[in-house]
Amino acid sequence: MAIVGVENSNTWMGAGELLSSEHASVVSINLFVVLLCTCIIIGHLLEENRWLNESITALLIGICTGVVILLLSRGKSSRILVFSEELFFIYLLPPIIFNAGFQVKKKRFFRNFSTITLFGAIGTLISTGVISAGAMYFFKNKDIGYLSIADYLAIGAIFSATDSVCTLQVLNQDETPLLYSLVFGEGVVNDATSVVLFNAIQSLDFSHISSIASLEFAGSFLYLLISSTILGVLVGLLSAYTIKTLYFGRHSTDREVAIMILMAYLSYMLAELFSLSAILTVFFCGIVMSHYTWHNVTQSSRVTTKHAFATLSFVAEIFIFLYVGMDALDIEKWKFVSHSPGTSISTSSILLGLVMVGRAAFVFPLSFLSNLTKNFSSDKLTIKQQVTIWWAGLMRGAVSMALAYNHFTRSGYTQLRPNAIMITSTITVVLFSTVVFGMLTKPLIKFLLPPTKQMLASDSMVCSEPSSPKSLAIPLLLDGGNSDDEESSNSLPRPTSLRMFLRTPSYSIHYHWRRFDDGFMRPVFGGRGFVPFVPGSPVESDDLQQQWLN
Amino acid sequence: MAIVGVENSNTWMGAGELLSSEHASVVSINLFVVLLCTCIIIGHLLEENRWLNESITALLIGICTGVVILLLSRGKSSRILVFSEELFFIYLLPPIIFNAGFQVKKKRFFRNFSTITLFGAIGTLISTGVISAGAMYFFKNKDIGYLSIADYLAIGAIFSATDSVCTLQVLNQDETPLLYSLVFGEGVVNDATSVVLFNAIQSLDFSHISSIASLEFAGSFLYLLISSTILGVLVGLLSAYTIKTLYFGRHSTDREVAIMILMAYLSYMLAELFSLSAILTVFFCGIVMSHYTWHNVTQSSRVTTKHAFATLSFVAEIFIFLYVGMDALDIEKWKFVSHSPGTSISTSSILLGLVMVGRAAFVFPLSFLSNLTKNFSSDKLTIKQQVTIWWAGLMRGAVSMALAYNHFTRSGYTQLRPNAIMITSTITVVLFSTVVFGMLTKPLIKFLLPPTKQMLASDSMVCSEPSSPKSLAIPLLLDGGNSDDEESSNSLPRPTSLRMFLRTPSYSIHYHWRRFDDGFMRPVFGGRGFVPFVPGSPVESDDLQQQWLN
Repeated sequence: MAIVGVENSNTWMGAGELLSSEHASVVSINLFVVLLCTCIIIGHLLEENRWLNESITALLIGICTGVVILLLSRGKSSRILVFSEELFFIYLLPPIIFNAGFQVKKKRFFRNFSTITLFGAIGTLISTGVISAGAMYFFKNKDIGYLSIADYLAIGAIFSATDSVCTLQVLNQDETPLLYSLVFGEGVVNDATSVVLFNAIQSLDFSHISSIASLEFAGSFLYLLISSTILGVLVGLLSAYTIKTLYFGRHSTDREVAIMILMAYLSYMLAELFSLSAILTVFFCGIVMSHYTWHNVTQSSRVTTKHAFATLSFVAEIFIFLYVGMDALDIEKWKFVSHSPGTSISTSSILLGLVMVGRAAFVFPLSFLSNLTKNFSSDKLTIKQQVTIWWAGLMRGAVSMALAYNHFTRSGYTQLRPNAIMITSTITVVLFSTVVFGMLTKPLIKFLLPPTKQMLASDSMVCSEPSSPKSLAIPLLLDGGNSDDEESSNSLPRPTSLRMFLRTPSYSIHYHWRRFDDGFMRPVFGGRGFVPFVPGSPVESDDLQQQWLN
Repeated sequence: MAIVGVENSNTWMGAGELLSSEHASVVSINLFVVLLCTCIIIGHLLEENRWLNESITALLIGICTGVVILLLSRGKSSRILVFSEELFFIYLLPPIIFNAGFQVKKKRFFRNFSTITLFGAIGTLISTGVISAGAMYFFKNKDIGYLSIADYLAIGAIFSATDSVCTLQVLNQDETPLLYSLVFGEGVVNDATSVVLFNAIQSLDFSHISSIASLEFAGSFLYLLISSTILGVLVGLLSAYTIKTLYFGRHSTDREVAIMILMAYLSYMLAELFSLSAILTVFFCGIVMSHYTWHNVTQSSRVTTKHAFATLSFVAEIFIFLYVGMDALDIEKWKFVSHSPGTSISTSSILLGLVMVGRAAFVFPLSFLSNLTKNFSSDKLTIKQQVTIWWAGLMRGAVSMALAYNHFTRSGYTQLRPNAIMITSTITVVLFSTVVFGMLTKPLIKFLLPPTKQMLASDSMVCSEPSSPKSLAIPLLLDGGNSDDEESSNSLPRPTSLRMFLRTPSYSIHYHWRRFDDGFMRPVFGGRGFVPFVPGSPVESDDLQQQWLN
């Protein structure tokens, strides 16, 4: 009724166009909510399906809705919302990346930290170089129009941004833990790297390329990675300290939950404010919050935050795919390429090929390098695992779309032919890679890496129902954290000398970290076993907690 | 980093103004998140304070921030966001009203349904009439400028909208259950009535007022009330049926939570789409969801939804008060009245007086009428309770602000003197009533209605810690629901004849409703005790649930 009030009043004031804009936003919100519900229900019904997943369903439903709107509006328009980078980067991406950090298996992630950084940072640079060079070579003789060096480098950065959202839905943290942490960790670092690269390219002055400039670039890149991480850790620790000191649970669970959500979002927005990599910041904030803050709140708040973050992330993911699907058919963009469909198809095919080559150009060499540093053959990446890593990172998603819109359009529209071709090619690559590659991933992983007993046993988790990963994933965070923390500190050999340290550097670092964590960090910031029990507060015994969550 | 990308690109495109707009939105989001955290922490520290509550704290912090911004910008601007009705009605109000319906004690609400409707609907009409007539009488001789009949009627509707948000924070559902349900229920119906009235006034043609037009008005008013309620109930039932049939918990808690949140929001937006009273719709959707849907989901989802809805509502409330506080000092609006501060002060005082008289004009007569229908003296409203009801509804809040902006400004700005005076007077009334009346309410209620043993016993709830209402309110929903449902069905006399029906109509309706509910509704839509237990699913035994929640 309120909206109607607004409408009436606007009519009364004689501002008819505001009436339609208000009404349009109500209609589009309704449509999106109904579509989101539909996607969730269909995704639930298709849970056991080996080809489809929720992302692909959402993308297909988005395209179908686009077709319906196109037909209803008689070919005039297919979208009800213009793809907005602000919506994507400020509202939809933060919950997804935060939840990833919040739910990630911390020990496994940090054990593979060097490999992840290698793949994410160096790999993305290699991929950008390969794709840029390839595009420059192949597009020269095509009827596309003039593209500058900056455009080619931007194309490289745009098509080097893997879609971590889609990867997360395809790989399973419990079935293939090593690959999951590698591919996912790489995805986060990759997201950050591509965006940083992209911005550097936008601001680079191509008339004065020197070795000093490239050194400066490397320096600012390192500065970004480190300062973003530190900011995320600081905000996470601040939230832990605040909640531990004030003990909100005494009065209200809602305050604890609100503070956790607000502080998580604050870390992202502060990074944006200081021009850092917000994706890295919010990811590390999520890790710190799950290690300290989460243990300082009441039991109800723990259950609530875990599921609330997961739900937010889940809805944001579906929303993004719906959005990309609906936006894909926008008639405006296809007008320019409709005269020469051949050019568009060949451009897209070339880019798709370059994406595959660009990824192969770093996955296999870097895996080889990474294997050289490993002593035990069980730690080394087999060729089948390398193929899986290569394949799982081929999908391109919303980050690529957002960067392409950013570089090649102005507020979502373009009037130049080469720009329009690049936008439509990006959409084609995103749709094709998400749908086709995405569908093939589950069967491929099953074929390459059939689940073995050893793999399940090494995870030390009881998987009585492998068909219901999501409902099982709930107790796994608790159990996983438990086995991560306690088991390792008991079973690992204690290093006593420098020689020992050099032989097992990562174990040694882990040992010293645990001593520091138990001796200083947890007493100050709280965490498992370091939260004072307040009588009368709704904190339960561990038995009940285990019983309840299992 | 993404935003920086956007900025760079815009600079590169030569669109400097977009740079500043993007940056401004990042700054303002940061500021709001920090302020929200501050309000929550201060509210926590002041929990035991008898004068202040979270609303007043947020309002004061908002005003202080406004002063700081005003000083920093050297008197140019005090607000970083223009008060937006869309933000208020589409994003902030729905979670508050939905949560109110979700957490309300259903039995008590429906037992007092007739009184609530009387107060909410008839009372608001009386109040609007009194305030409009009073304003017309007093403003005639003032130096305000020309106001039409439509303006005067709009003033009546604007100042008849009570602030249910603030009332909820002041009254306690467990200490004064009857008053809480009366005042709160009245608030919901009142919100709906004022908005409906306001819209009717906006579209009324004052040159052709006839008895047929007023009949039409009454008819459309009844149609709105009934159809809005039915829509809310239908969407609630649909969510219950969907979740019961598909049993989402089998695969994922997140899907259940997502579906519940999305369907709740859908009910609000559908009502907006069909031009119904969205406030009423989402309120009844909340009631139905807590009665059926909530019992169909897994234990984790129950905990999550209860706290997630409460947190959303809590943050939205604080946000509104911050917003109103920051907006209050906007220099633009005060320019017109700065020449004649006397006029503004006297206008505000008159309106404040009219608000008090207008409310007294219906609370006492309608209480008298309501008492006539009650047989037992314990059911009748005492004069002290009537004074409390009168006082608790005196606060004016964001709904009044939104309606005033809607009628007297165009996209947040006004150039006319009478309009500017009305806007500043509305702000003055809202600030004064919220801060001064709000501060006096807790002591007044303590003075008028000291908590008696009988009152606590009649609630059949153990209040071992009356000082921590919010952490106690969590188990109370379950327990309250339990005592509401089971106890009443056992202890009430079974009516056997028409005579019995006439003597105790509300009990009889309740008895028949319970038979229908147990016989048809719960088997179809689920609910307490009617959800099939699926082995292996995370549904716990009732013992554990009780143990866990207490």
